[in-house]
Amino acid sequence: MSVTSPAGFAAAGVACGIKASGAPDLALVVTDDGVPVPAAGVFTSNLATAAPVQVSRRHLASSAGRAAAVVLSSGNANAATGAQGLADATRMCALVGEGIGAATEEVLVCQTGLIGIPLPMACLERGIPSLVAARAGGTAAGADAATAIMTTDTFAKQVTVSGGGFRVGAMAKGAAMLAPNMATMLAVLTTDAQCDPRVLRDALAGAVASTFNRMTVDGCTSTNDTVLVLASGRAGVSPTAHALAGALEEACGALAAMMAEDAEGATKVAHVLVTGARDDQEAHVAARKVADSNLVKCSLNGADPYWGRVVSELGSAGVGFDPDRVSVAYGGVVVCRDGVAAAHDADAVSAHMAGAAVELACDLGLGPGRAVVLTCDLGHGYIDENRTTS
Amino acid sequence: MSVTSPAGFAAAGVACGIKASGAPDLALVVTDDGVPVPAAGVFTSNLATAAPVQVSRRHLASSAGRAAAVVLSSGNANAATGAQGLADATRMCALVGEGIGAATEEVLVCQTGLIGIPLPMACLERGIPSLVAARAGGTAAGADAATAIMTTDTFAKQVTVSGGGFRVGAMAKGAAMLAPNMATMLAVLTTDAQCDPRVLRDALAGAVASTFNRMTVDGCTSTNDTVLVLASGRAGVSPTAHALAGALEEACGALAAMMAEDAEGATKVAHVLVTGARDDQEAHVAARKVADSNLVKCSLNGADPYWGRVVSELGSAGVGFDPDRVSVAYGGVVVCRDGVAAAHDADAVSAHMAGAAVELACDLGLGPGRAVVLTCDLGHGYIDENRTTS
Repeated sequence: MSVTSPAGFAAAGVACGIKASGAPDLALVVTDDGVPVPAAGVFTSNLATAAPVQVSRRHLASSAGRAAAVVLSSGNANAATGAQGLADATRMCALVGEGIGAATEEVLVCQTGLIGIPLPMACLERGIPSLVAARAGGTAAGADAATAIMTTDTFAKQVTVSGGGFRVGAMAKGAAMLAPNMATMLAVLTTDAQCDPRVLRDALAGAVASTFNRMTVDGCTSTNDTVLVLASGRAGVSPTAHALAGALEEACGALAAMMAEDAEGATKVAHVLVTGARDDQEAHVAARKVADSNLVKCSLNGADPYWGRVVSELGSAGVGFDPDRVSVAYGGVVVCRDGVAAAHDADAVSAHMAGAAVELACDLGLGPGRAVVLTCDLGHGYIDENRTTS
Repeated sequence: MSVTSPAGFAAAGVACGIKASGAPDLALVVTDDGVPVPAAGVFTSNLATAAPVQVSRRHLASSAGRAAAVVLSSGNANAATGAQGLADATRMCALVGEGIGAATEEVLVCQTGLIGIPLPMACLERGIPSLVAARAGGTAAGADAATAIMTTDTFAKQVTVSGGGFRVGAMAKGAAMLAPNMATMLAVLTTDAQCDPRVLRDALAGAVASTFNRMTVDGCTSTNDTVLVLASGRAGVSPTAHALAGALEEACGALAAMMAEDAEGATKVAHVLVTGARDDQEAHVAARKVADSNLVKCSLNGADPYWGRVVSELGSAGVGFDPDRVSVAYGGVVVCRDGVAAAHDADAVSAHMAGAAVELACDLGLGPGRAVVLTCDLGHGYIDENRTTS
């Protein structure tokens, strides 16, 4: 159950000293023979783009969508670090390339951690050769890599999807800044399916759009978001584009659910479903407005079925809205119908909201539009995690 | 220093039983002779519009911008209450009109409190005649009214502005849901200036745009926001439109500052200044993105000068942004220049951030655009205030 599950991949995770705690902070996902394979990536939409994002984009472009390895570090984002940051991220790729016998442009790089602090390159100059030497197949090596990319995550996030004669393995990190375009999250997927880079890229883009981009923790978009996939082809199977996209989506969806569960300070996750919007896009905007609302998220923290706040957010989402047609349900129990309070089983609602997974369904009563956004509650833990960086 | 400061107005505040606590919850601002005067209003942009907002809009339209009184209640928003809510809000106006000898359409109504709960009209049927009987001039009566509209506010918010031969008096309530279009806030302004309703309306719209609409507590837009102004003309002075607008802006600005100071759970306020944007509109969008960011607000709570988050928010604001040109300063001390860390006096920054008012200045280095948004920190207090309605 890791990035090493598909045939043809090795991995490693070590501590190189970026994190003062001495925790693992350097990871590698690599083809087992160091030969480049089809690869694709989806990156942050933030214009304050971190150096590793710029370097990985450039490498994927110059290699025409092929890569032999991904090197990942945690504890320092290498963002807002200027020209030196770009040189450092490129040097990380070169060091890995030297170790595995690949070109610098065939190595991709992901980083996560604090913004605006120069990367401690001495750690990486020493650490990357050790990392490359430690690479191995098997689930232990995959778990080492998944552990080394954690920041405020409380557990390593991994998944394997099988079916149709091929496998997808994946790991991710992410516990905050998770919206609206997959913020401070990194994910690396591997597959042993055969496919060309263009098909792989489209499949990944679709999977990200329907999973990571449909969740929110705090509405903040990171400088470093990256999702990468490498396809070894070793399964000897060429799935249809649809089958490949489905497998990637399943893997990304599982990781997204783990991220919401592990969101900083969260005590519960909530699926915000909006139906009855004029179209799917409006449904998505409305669901995100509710899912990003601090007031709604505080209500989730307090297990308080205060549907008035939900209606207020829907009404200010900037989408088609008729106050006389809206309904709201928690856990399938309708608490607001046609815009006003509905008689309901308050005990059933309380019991549902006290649980770790809340279903909040809103119907706008206007059309066929439908969307779900995954979110979490807002509690003291989020503030405690984020009030200082020390 | 109240809505009764300008000549020609009386006020009152009583407890009528909407609030279970027995605290004052019903207020009146009224011309001292019950005769309608020029009046104007600015209302929430939320499409889930509360009944009192709909009724006040309708009354201002049918009276061609004249009103004799404003009745305000706290503890129940009368929002998401359907046709009954509209009938109840209209009945409140009728009761006041009967008491002061004015038509129902010459009375405006504002309400604040919980959404989705039918209004306890028995309280209002009993309370409004007592309220009307209690009306009086003088600052004590004005203070009674300002106190009766408080919900989670910790102090009554009042101001008087004098100059040019006329006065503006004002009161407001608001402690959360304060953005992006003046959410859960009510304000009533009075003036003894002479002016026609159209001039008054334009002056009020301008004042609201540059004050209440330039602050944010949690990015939520309420169902009930209302700012009203009544102009008695008793000063015998007809100020220029510019002078009138300036006085209203000064009053609204003072109330907005009080609201930010009194924001739920806030321990400090911050002025987020963005300069160097391509234009003022982009500056405003960028400033609001920073001011609404939970991560930035948590940093303010922790007095942590983590400028990397500020840059990340600017980069994801959807406005023109060049990562190599941005600079950030706290209290005038530049901590990021040309997109990277700048050597600075860390003690000076720490001392500034430990204070109750933080100046966060961002320069995008692209053009002449400039804007300020007022915000506050995000701490445990906000969550404690909002996790349950009970």
